[in-house]
Amino acid sequence: MSVEGNPGRRLLDEDRLFSSDPSQRSVARRLYAEIRDLPIVSPHGHTDPRWFADNEAFENPAKLFVTPDHYVFRMLYSQGIPLESLGVARRDGGPVESDPRKVWRLLAENYGLFRGTPSRLWLDHALSEVFGVQERLSAANADAVYDQVQACLDKPEYRPRALFDRFKIEVIATTESPLDPLESHARVRDSDWDGRVITAYRPDPVVDPEYEDFTANLEQLAEMTGETTSGWKGYLAALQQRRGFFAEMGATSTDHGHPSAATADLDPAACQSLLDRALSGAITAEDAELFRAQMLTEMARMSLEDGLVMQIHPGSFRSHNQKLMAGFGRDMGADIPTRTDYVRALRPLLSRFGNEPGLDVILFTLDETSYSRELAPLAGHYPILKLGPAWWFYDSPEGMLRYRRSVTETAGFYNTVGFNDDTRAFLSIPARHDVARRIDCAYLAELVCDHRLDEDEALEVAVDLTYNLVKKAYRL
Amino acid sequence: MSVEGNPGRRLLDEDRLFSSDPSQRSVARRLYAEIRDLPIVSPHGHTDPRWFADNEAFENPAKLFVTPDHYVFRMLYSQGIPLESLGVARRDGGPVESDPRKVWRLLAENYGLFRGTPSRLWLDHALSEVFGVQERLSAANADAVYDQVQACLDKPEYRPRALFDRFKIEVIATTESPLDPLESHARVRDSDWDGRVITAYRPDPVVDPEYEDFTANLEQLAEMTGETTSGWKGYLAALQQRRGFFAEMGATSTDHGHPSAATADLDPAACQSLLDRALSGAITAEDAELFRAQMLTEMARMSLEDGLVMQIHPGSFRSHNQKLMAGFGRDMGADIPTRTDYVRALRPLLSRFGNEPGLDVILFTLDETSYSRELAPLAGHYPILKLGPAWWFYDSPEGMLRYRRSVTETAGFYNTVGFNDDTRAFLSIPARHDVARRIDCAYLAELVCDHRLDEDEALEVAVDLTYNLVKKAYRL
Amino acid sequence: MSVEGNPGRRLLDEDRLFSSDPSQRSVARRLYAEIRDLPIVSPHGHTDPRWFADNEAFENPAKLFVTPDHYVFRMLYSQGIPLESLGVARRDGGPVESDPRKVWRLLAENYGLFRGTPSRLWLDHALSEVFGVQERLSAANADAVYDQVQACLDKPEYRPRALFDRFKIEVIATTESPLDPLESHARVRDSDWDGRVITAYRPDPVVDPEYEDFTANLEQLAEMTGETTSGWKGYLAALQQRRGFFAEMGATSTDHGHPSAATADLDPAACQSLLDRALSGAITAEDAELFRAQMLTEMARMSLEDGLVMQIHPGSFRSHNQKLMAGFGRDMGADIPTRTDYVRALRPLLSRFGNEPGLDVILFTLDETSYSRELAPLAGHYPILKLGPAWWFYDSPEGMLRYRRSVTETAGFYNTVGFNDDTRAFLSIPARHDVARRIDCAYLAELVCDHRLDEDEALEVAVDLTYNLVKKAYRL
Repeated sequence: MSVEGNPGRRLLDEDRLFSSDPSQRSVARRLYAEIRDLPIVSPHGHTDPRWFADNEAFENPAKLFVTPDHYVFRMLYSQGIPLESLGVARRDGGPVESDPRKVWRLLAENYGLFRGTPSRLWLDHALSEVFGVQERLSAANADAVYDQVQACLDKPEYRPRALFDRFKIEVIATTESPLDPLESHARVRDSDWDGRVITAYRPDPVVDPEYEDFTANLEQLAEMTGETTSGWKGYLAALQQRRGFFAEMGATSTDHGHPSAATADLDPAACQSLLDRALSGAITAEDAELFRAQMLTEMARMSLEDGLVMQIHPGSFRSHNQKLMAGFGRDMGADIPTRTDYVRALRPLLSRFGNEPGLDVILFTLDETSYSRELAPLAGHYPILKLGPAWWFYDSPEGMLRYRRSVTETAGFYNTVGFNDDTRAFLSIPARHDVARRIDCAYLAELVCDHRLDEDEALEVAVDLTYNLVKKAYRL
Repeated sequence: MSVEGNPGRRLLDEDRLFSSDPSQRSVARRLYAEIRDLPIVSPHGHTDPRWFADNEAFENPAKLFVTPDHYVFRMLYSQGIPLESLGVARRDGGPVESDPRKVWRLLAENYGLFRGTPSRLWLDHALSEVFGVQERLSAANADAVYDQVQACLDKPEYRPRALFDRFKIEVIATTESPLDPLESHARVRDSDWDGRVITAYRPDPVVDPEYEDFTANLEQLAEMTGETTSGWKGYLAALQQRRGFFAEMGATSTDHGHPSAATADLDPAACQSLLDRALSGAITAEDAELFRAQMLTEMARMSLEDGLVMQIHPGSFRSHNQKLMAGFGRDMGADIPTRTDYVRALRPLLSRFGNEPGLDVILFTLDETSYSRELAPLAGHYPILKLGPAWWFYDSPEGMLRYRRSVTETAGFYNTVGFNDDTRAFLSIPARHDVARRIDCAYLAELVCDHRLDEDEALEVAVDLTYNLVKKAYRL
Repeated sequence: MSVEGNPGRRLLDEDRLFSSDPSQRSVARRLYAEIRDLPIVSPHGHTDPRWFADNEAFENPAKLFVTPDHYVFRMLYSQGIPLESLGVARRDGGPVESDPRKVWRLLAENYGLFRGTPSRLWLDHALSEVFGVQERLSAANADAVYDQVQACLDKPEYRPRALFDRFKIEVIATTESPLDPLESHARVRDSDWDGRVITAYRPDPVVDPEYEDFTANLEQLAEMTGETTSGWKGYLAALQQRRGFFAEMGATSTDHGHPSAATADLDPAACQSLLDRALSGAITAEDAELFRAQMLTEMARMSLEDGLVMQIHPGSFRSHNQKLMAGFGRDMGADIPTRTDYVRALRPLLSRFGNEPGLDVILFTLDETSYSRELAPLAGHYPILKLGPAWWFYDSPEGMLRYRRSVTETAGFYNTVGFNDDTRAFLSIPARHDVARRIDCAYLAELVCDHRLDEDEALEVAVDLTYNLVKKAYRL
């Protein structure tokens, strides 16, 4: 069975995501034509650096598209399909489906569940643009598509580095714990391949007292740095030393995934006392929150010194499903957004550093109500603040449009930082950037067509949103 | 005076609620043509079962359209028109307008207040489609329209059963307290009419310690069931017994209208202690909340056993206007939505039952901020959760569009359950379903026209949203 | 260099802000043609009454457009431009840029920052319509535009009273503290100019215990009124006396800018006790909140007596940036919206006065989530409540559209009160009213084109929104 479809029919329409209004569509086309081929700058994401260090072939379609992608398997799970049947590993090593073709068929048979979701756009894009599949995935063509993708994966031009080059990725950042030796990054750097793969400093395991093994993590940090991490001063020095190492390895940013955006500005004695309780394992939830809050302010201080751009990603209730956490661990599609305050939460940090030239703090949210009410007003005033793009569940056509419509009028375009793909699904990277570019063009076309913006300006903005702003904001 | 208007002019436009963009409009038309005549499945509402048991004529236009419809009289009240002048009964039996024509004239004279509201759509639909009125209601034609409607009501084909059949209602659910003997339902069942009118189990009066006459209600429950409702075990057994009776009488669902979505999972001793305080009448607001929270979890457990689908309708601050509550009682248009949390509130229930095959919990909200932030992420993950449609104040064109745009990208279409009319205004039922069908088609047409969805898929989705999903979700 | 541009090119398009859909655009054009020339009624704003009393020329373009406009300088500040370089006065009298041409150049060089913001629309409108500039402001034409504007300002027809007349302002309200002697208003009244400039009673400095110099303010109030403001009764009498004086001077409304919408209804002894603590300077944050809450209820009571319309503008976290507050004082673009509750907050006031004929309370919000969830349901029920227009950060095309789409379906058009420009930037007044009129027409055109409203009704609504509702709501 052929999955390349009829000659005249393609899986992706050239005008997808542009308004059906003819005047808007034609403006959007013109804008998009100028940015579609700009390189991808990916300053924030979760790809595995070993892919680029080892450059081994991706194993099979299921391991590429289903098993690692929580967007995909959470939807299937929500309709009663067990994670085991999707090949997701159990923590107890219990049996899970090991035949990738069976996993793939489950995706194909249930492909209709993804109607109207961004996952559908990304999967169609990857199947079509990367693997040449021109028919919509279905139960009927599941095996044929599987075979076509597998045949590609077996070829050298589908290995990670080749795809990286084909996707025109100018630079990609991964995310690592300060405890990571960054061995894969060293191997990429030392290789003869010139792809730019950098890290980002994500200290949650060593700044969140409620993180698994926090005490052990601080001991490991002490070993790695030679600092006494049970003392406040030594603890900060250890964190700072690792930041320096990350910066040497190419990092230009840090990233902070706290439950809230709370910040604090305590005196050192109070900090030492919090640290003592954290290490004793007897810290209360309130004190753990206060500890994290203090650490955001400390990280801002260090950023002012070492120039790493600070990213704050608050508001996810992690691993909400206790049974799934017990059976499968973190990142199983059970992280749920929560209401998030920024105005009061960030004030301690902003009171200390909000007006500092040389400091850049990029804010993200999972609470869209904060776009127009809190984030745009804050970023439209404080010099250190910029807004990250629509994040996670909102990395989608409607999500991005709501973001632009809610943010632009108060913060403008130039207090935003371009697009983040934020993904561990490598094949979705060009798809996600393409969606972002198209939606930005669609939004700009609206402004042009109702005469809020001239087309020459819109074109300049389109290029800035796609390329210039991200380079500048992340110091790349 | 004729109210059938000019021959070429109709009150309702054939293309109403479709986008004015020609390409979207033509897709919407094609989709709508395939679903407009599907039967109405109404799994949740508040029609009076006596209408179908007694099949008596509706008395007059005022009693049909104004006096029982809190959407209508709240708008008039907001502009200073006393409820007394609209014929709404006072609790003290004090005088209210008794001439239905005068009540009707107040509606007609103030019809402009409803511009842009769904009430206007529903009233126009009923007047036009059911009663043949083809002129916009106004002070000038008030009496003529009144006479035309009254003339219809006097005919047998405008009696409840005839309208039920004419509206192509396949099944309708009403809502009753566990204390209700379901006598009307029995009469419908035992009649020679084959209309399917079922009940739904709404236990608020016996699970909310703050409900009027809670203690007396539990005594009545004890009498009805032979259980000792002052003991936790007997209390639960009584509730379960009534569920069984409701199921026998056709119920496939329960419904829970708590102030919040709080759930709890306490041990039996703590439950008995709460029940003791509830029955003593000395329960605090916090304990009343905890009692209700525990009861949601108990109801989920019973649903897992008896298969009744569980509906949670939280977040209404009931009877906010104290003067109106004193003068006229509940349901006087003074219920106001409040901010509602789901993520933390539902966790005790979800930790216990969130992954259970065979359990279905349908969530509703009056807090639209939860659509994309909480509800879609929860329903797009937990197998037991589905999302009810846009509810109450959001049962409207813009409300439904916001719902689809906020929910679909994360939860898809298949974690939603089709439409609920949720009304006590019988004549609005076909109007409301028609609005929902049109808006779904308009939304799907958007997706088709910007190439997020193929038209063959959109058609399948349209049929599912209108008919299949509701049948499946409510086990009808 | 000419800044009047090419003959055929204008800075403002005639169809700006109308949908690009041809059918919607043509309806919007027809509606707008009927309202574009209606007089401006400006019931709420912050222009300086001395302008109209003294009628002196505006000094230069920088002092007209940049230095007093926090919308403008906050955006520049957010991108690292110091307020000093924009000529904003420091509290310590330290040096700031004194050359208005240099300030103007900073605006021109950074004009791109305002792309997509309402400030851009207002600036373009004023430059084009008032000063005849037909080229987009830029670094290249900064000096030429400066010269052209300056040349105008030097002419008598650009003095405040002439512009007032040219803008067709029928009436404008300024905002003053009860401590203000209203001397400028008296001079306007006693002049031979017939422009109607009225005041509004803004008692924050004497009803908020956390306001700077609260105790001294009450002493001044005592002196002005002869009342003993340290006693609850005398304090209320003094406030009431000043309301009477304001009403004499033309005021038809009061205005209240509290951090929240909290109201209270305490007994006089509790009030006296709060007042004692407030005057002692030792009041807690909670008690200060309670004091303000009580004062809203007292103000409602006085409004019922003296007929002043009550405006509540809650939810701004004032002067969030501590360094800027220290350096430059209030109103420096650092006020940030916060989440705001209305349902519980307003209940004490509504329980006492919510159904009173003769009382009008206009609610505003900086929390858009409250539009559909709280404000429209409240205003669509309580006779005393009306909704103010989209406010502050939401006085913008998208902000206004979200407002109409969220509010209309539940509250209708007739529980809203037309437009407020709420500005201290005199030149933006016609621009802002024009944006509001265009957006209302665009929204009404949507309703007409998808057949939710007939065009004859839409036209009536357009006139009401522009002129009749504001006159009625503010008793002008």
